[in-house]
Amino acid sequence: MAFGIAEATESAKARLSPDRLFPAEASTRSVARSLYQAVSKLPIVSPHGHTDPRWYAENDPFPDPARLFIVPDHYVFRLLHSQGIDLSDLGVPRADDGWTETDSRTIWHLFAENYHLFRATPSRLWLEHAFEEVFGWTRRLCAENADEAYDHIAACLAKPQFRPRALFERFNIEVIATTESPLDDLCWHRAIRESDWNGKVVTAYRPDNVVDPDFEGFTQNVEKLGELAGEDTLGWQGYLNAHRQRRAFFKSLGATSTDHGHPSAHTENLSAAEADGLFQRALKGTCTPADAERFRGHMLTEMARMSLDDDLVLQIHPGSFRNHSSPVLNAYGRDKGFDIPKQTTYVDALKPLLDAVGEEKNLGIILFTLDETAYSRELAPLAGVYPALKLGPAWWFHDSPEGMLRFREMTTETAGFHNTVGFNDDTRAFCSIPARHDVARRVDCAYLASLVTSGRLDEDEAYEVAIDLAYRLAKQAYRL
Amino acid sequence: MAFGIAEATESAKARLSPDRLFPAEASTRSVARSLYQAVSKLPIVSPHGHTDPRWYAENDPFPDPARLFIVPDHYVFRLLHSQGIDLSDLGVPRADDGWTETDSRTIWHLFAENYHLFRATPSRLWLEHAFEEVFGWTRRLCAENADEAYDHIAACLAKPQFRPRALFERFNIEVIATTESPLDDLCWHRAIRESDWNGKVVTAYRPDNVVDPDFEGFTQNVEKLGELAGEDTLGWQGYLNAHRQRRAFFKSLGATSTDHGHPSAHTENLSAAEADGLFQRALKGTCTPADAERFRGHMLTEMARMSLDDDLVLQIHPGSFRNHSSPVLNAYGRDKGFDIPKQTTYVDALKPLLDAVGEEKNLGIILFTLDETAYSRELAPLAGVYPALKLGPAWWFHDSPEGMLRFREMTTETAGFHNTVGFNDDTRAFCSIPARHDVARRVDCAYLASLVTSGRLDEDEAYEVAIDLAYRLAKQAYRL
Amino acid sequence: MAFGIAEATESAKARLSPDRLFPAEASTRSVARSLYQAVSKLPIVSPHGHTDPRWYAENDPFPDPARLFIVPDHYVFRLLHSQGIDLSDLGVPRADDGWTETDSRTIWHLFAENYHLFRATPSRLWLEHAFEEVFGWTRRLCAENADEAYDHIAACLAKPQFRPRALFERFNIEVIATTESPLDDLCWHRAIRESDWNGKVVTAYRPDNVVDPDFEGFTQNVEKLGELAGEDTLGWQGYLNAHRQRRAFFKSLGATSTDHGHPSAHTENLSAAEADGLFQRALKGTCTPADAERFRGHMLTEMARMSLDDDLVLQIHPGSFRNHSSPVLNAYGRDKGFDIPKQTTYVDALKPLLDAVGEEKNLGIILFTLDETAYSRELAPLAGVYPALKLGPAWWFHDSPEGMLRFREMTTETAGFHNTVGFNDDTRAFCSIPARHDVARRVDCAYLASLVTSGRLDEDEAYEVAIDLAYRLAKQAYRL
Repeated sequence: MAFGIAEATESAKARLSPDRLFPAEASTRSVARSLYQAVSKLPIVSPHGHTDPRWYAENDPFPDPARLFIVPDHYVFRLLHSQGIDLSDLGVPRADDGWTETDSRTIWHLFAENYHLFRATPSRLWLEHAFEEVFGWTRRLCAENADEAYDHIAACLAKPQFRPRALFERFNIEVIATTESPLDDLCWHRAIRESDWNGKVVTAYRPDNVVDPDFEGFTQNVEKLGELAGEDTLGWQGYLNAHRQRRAFFKSLGATSTDHGHPSAHTENLSAAEADGLFQRALKGTCTPADAERFRGHMLTEMARMSLDDDLVLQIHPGSFRNHSSPVLNAYGRDKGFDIPKQTTYVDALKPLLDAVGEEKNLGIILFTLDETAYSRELAPLAGVYPALKLGPAWWFHDSPEGMLRFREMTTETAGFHNTVGFNDDTRAFCSIPARHDVARRVDCAYLASLVTSGRLDEDEAYEVAIDLAYRLAKQAYRL
Repeated sequence: MAFGIAEATESAKARLSPDRLFPAEASTRSVARSLYQAVSKLPIVSPHGHTDPRWYAENDPFPDPARLFIVPDHYVFRLLHSQGIDLSDLGVPRADDGWTETDSRTIWHLFAENYHLFRATPSRLWLEHAFEEVFGWTRRLCAENADEAYDHIAACLAKPQFRPRALFERFNIEVIATTESPLDDLCWHRAIRESDWNGKVVTAYRPDNVVDPDFEGFTQNVEKLGELAGEDTLGWQGYLNAHRQRRAFFKSLGATSTDHGHPSAHTENLSAAEADGLFQRALKGTCTPADAERFRGHMLTEMARMSLDDDLVLQIHPGSFRNHSSPVLNAYGRDKGFDIPKQTTYVDALKPLLDAVGEEKNLGIILFTLDETAYSRELAPLAGVYPALKLGPAWWFHDSPEGMLRFREMTTETAGFHNTVGFNDDTRAFCSIPARHDVARRVDCAYLASLVTSGRLDEDEAYEVAIDLAYRLAKQAYRL
Repeated sequence: MAFGIAEATESAKARLSPDRLFPAEASTRSVARSLYQAVSKLPIVSPHGHTDPRWYAENDPFPDPARLFIVPDHYVFRLLHSQGIDLSDLGVPRADDGWTETDSRTIWHLFAENYHLFRATPSRLWLEHAFEEVFGWTRRLCAENADEAYDHIAACLAKPQFRPRALFERFNIEVIATTESPLDDLCWHRAIRESDWNGKVVTAYRPDNVVDPDFEGFTQNVEKLGELAGEDTLGWQGYLNAHRQRRAFFKSLGATSTDHGHPSAHTENLSAAEADGLFQRALKGTCTPADAERFRGHMLTEMARMSLDDDLVLQIHPGSFRNHSSPVLNAYGRDKGFDIPKQTTYVDALKPLLDAVGEEKNLGIILFTLDETAYSRELAPLAGVYPALKLGPAWWFHDSPEGMLRFREMTTETAGFHNTVGFNDDTRAFCSIPARHDVARRVDCAYLASLVTSGRLDEDEAYEVAIDLAYRLAKQAYRL
């Protein structure tokens, strides 16, 4: 991906190897390189992520380098913290009244001094791709050049060609999805639509805060849902109707999917009376942890039934123990790098859902996991037989070269390529988007090349599959 | 494996790479190729599988290409179904009164049009090996050449040299085991023995239907077992005696092994009174799921004790959630591609069995798993110390190039090679047998070559091990 | 590592490949070789192991080859036993009155005749490294040369340069830690200190026998602890004080760490009253298995709190089912190769400990696992955010080329290198120490080389990391 670096910076020798992430063996590398050339410039389809629609609506400049690359990126600050650096020294906002650093240059220096900690991590790949390809800065960051890097990037950010819409276009993003709650008024999405800008930004329906009885403020959230939808959401049918209405509203602003971040993959298929009973206890705050689990599980089946009507694709992101450290949660709030994967099983958990809708060939359910042991044992066998099921790509901690390779090696033989859905960047770090797609494309081309040189795939087919994985499958699976 | 292709078909350029599945790096590939040359033509020992003994007894022609390759092969039709193709359009027989396609050419076309779905799957490797090596058809299947392929294979099937016994000989099968229930009269095995044909086909004792209280018709099955054995199987000792007699009968028709497909690896070592109590509840249909689990678990220990007397090797195939989709089970019946692996643990589960018989050096217990996480964590450490235990090869979904490589990489360092038992094709797809053994031999040679070029194994030893893995260990472990 | 072989033996052609364990591909191998040259001669830092301090104190010759390499090494005798060789034929001491072989040459012959069983195991790598590099014997062991090998090694062992202190120096051991119970008087450590020898041998505090209510003789052990510490250990505060005193005593003899071998990673953070209640039940032998689990779990948190005061690093080695075979335990006693890994989870288990002390940046907690599935799912994410946590290296069954490579591939991308602690040889087999460190250094260099040739790490950084992994991180993490 060449972004007209010369425009952004003085000419400089590239640091990024053009053959990075390709196999070392010459014949395989050669095939990988050719496959990559066929996909490297394809438009980016980003069907699931967490960028802020306000960026595209307002098109204001991004702030300084520290607030772009460090303060909001839990991948970055968690690894620095793991080596004893206080989150407050990294400018991470606090939930209590404690001090946090506000000088961006100071934060940047701390980052630069500890840049060696990122060796061999995907964050390093993403950062260096952004430094070089987005900003044209090609030295390896360290304490000595921290100011130079800071000044260079800050100067870029002040220019119009580094505003969100310009970068969106430079990144060749064909479509990007954001993620909003049913309680969101989608004002920024409406503003984008009403603007004269043609970038395609769509929302996705993420109802955890009105579906999970354990979510903070659940009952008030359900009440607010009722107000927004004009339904009595304190009754079971009104609650379901409110979902239907908000889904329709989201769909009117481009949504093609829903998304569900549950502690487990547990599903249920309850009678209306049972579901209503759980719902009433949830509203009163009297449901047990097991009740909450069953209610969330049943709502996945309800959501799948709604998807049969409105065609929204249903994504399940299970298995994260959120906010593992109580002291950090109290001091800094949610989403501070302390979300830890748990063992997750799918076979028993999904049976109620799959008995209800698994054979529906027009339904799309996309399963994710943070437990790689499920790839070959449960997920590939399930996706390899149920028409409604597909596998989301390697997720979160596993969205890395080794993680993506393990995903392919452990799912393809049983599920094939067509039960997978291409790549998700799943990020709020806008400048990492081209890097993340580039890493995925390179790893997939490396994998395909190894199939070719070991006689498992014809080379002409490998080109087709490379394009499927980089572009077509995401469009198809997410109906974009 | 060259089968005199010229006889079967016009000459054609081979599609299969002679170096397929070998490492790409030249020096390692060269070692792999040499090792493979030493084992590629060794006879096939197939100690566990599901071919139909009637084929060998009657030696009738196989039916048409669709009924040979698609309709009976759950690997093939499940993957097509996963992409929304109805099982009934693939001719899969139904358990209800619904329609299913009966025109084989129509089924074959649907398969050919969707052949791309099999890219990078082991089914593709097996199919293309059979197309080319068995039938001499060397083009890549697609909609355009579907008729040509169909006609070519159909014409072959009409010839005497494609009948079961001729193929058995062409495949260089030294011995093959089938799998029958204790209720089977083994008439086809007797017919083979009484014929003038010398192919070695043996049975194996698979008593799930008279050991598992959850099996459909358990009580009637136990009664029928009693009739066949001339024992009162409604009493505990008579039930055990009936097993002893049927095992002896199976042994008289060549059986060297028993096989047990349980939901888990749970074992028990109960007193006769406890076991009888569970058995009586099982016969009455009053046992709980936990009772059934204990009874099955205890029967493994009883079977192992009988093995001490009659030398039959005991195979345990645990951990499959059978017939996961209730709607599909209702419409199509069992074994329709909806058997999904579950998490399976062995350490606590096997302790009662191993405390009872694990130190018996003349006993052979062969453990399988569908949960690859057990390879390095539990199975290799157990097999690496208990004299009675050996590890079955990578099974079912894991019987693939990547799966077999993971098996070697995760078991060899702890258990060595001699606690493994060579390859099982475990198939009912007769024409895939040479392909499956060929894939296993290639993957093992690739693995051994990597040990040689990384200085972990001397090259002369690698030849010995290659022959062990391809031939000798299976004969020894299964006492064939 | 060249040990002046000529002195020890006649000149002989080396068997060990100088490039062993390096990637086969030429450019990657070349990088690996260069990296290895930079670390191969670094001193050995051995922060966790089980050698006998008496060896260094008395400096007596090691006994014969069988008693050096076979009788005490559970890696060796368990694999021989798994193929039906009686432990008693291998000279393994018994707990009952049964016979065991005492003729070392006979034992050695049995080993040599079955040497092929070790193909592709790490034991083979360690043995051959010791044979060649320590003893200068360079043939592949077999029945025919068994006597020659025996005589050669026995002759070496009689020489002064093969006594423990001379080997310690030849092995270039900068520091080695042993492991003792709080009830040990550390007389050999004192003798080493009081001698004129300057080798650095330190102890480590392993209190399982006074912390685990299920440990044989727990109550008496706690009483003895009280006597040694001059505290009333039948009361909760006296018990804690006794730990503090023994830790101080251990620290005075060089200890920088404690070590905890628990059945699981379960932790608790109980009130003093609750903890005392469990402790009193434990002393009376009335605690349930769940009580014992909670008590052990709470003691980890108490130990961590003491570490905040005395700076000892806390190691947790969970997840081994000890002495799995009851018949073997009865006949031969503990530690006879029947310790089998179990599924081990960390996320819920460690929360009480981590909520209490996980944010302490001056605390060092080193986590190990025998369940490789936890690497990428739980351990790397936990170590990648909590300042107090680091990951111990691949342990026990996984301390092998494939196991160490999986460790790097599954932890580095999320936790980086600096949340790991270098290598532990963790052995009681003294002559295997250089071999084990050499294997680890080679595997790490191979891994780093693959990062370099795939553009994920700059070559100059790879040299720094190689030295970190081989030397610096162990010194830092263990404060040596």
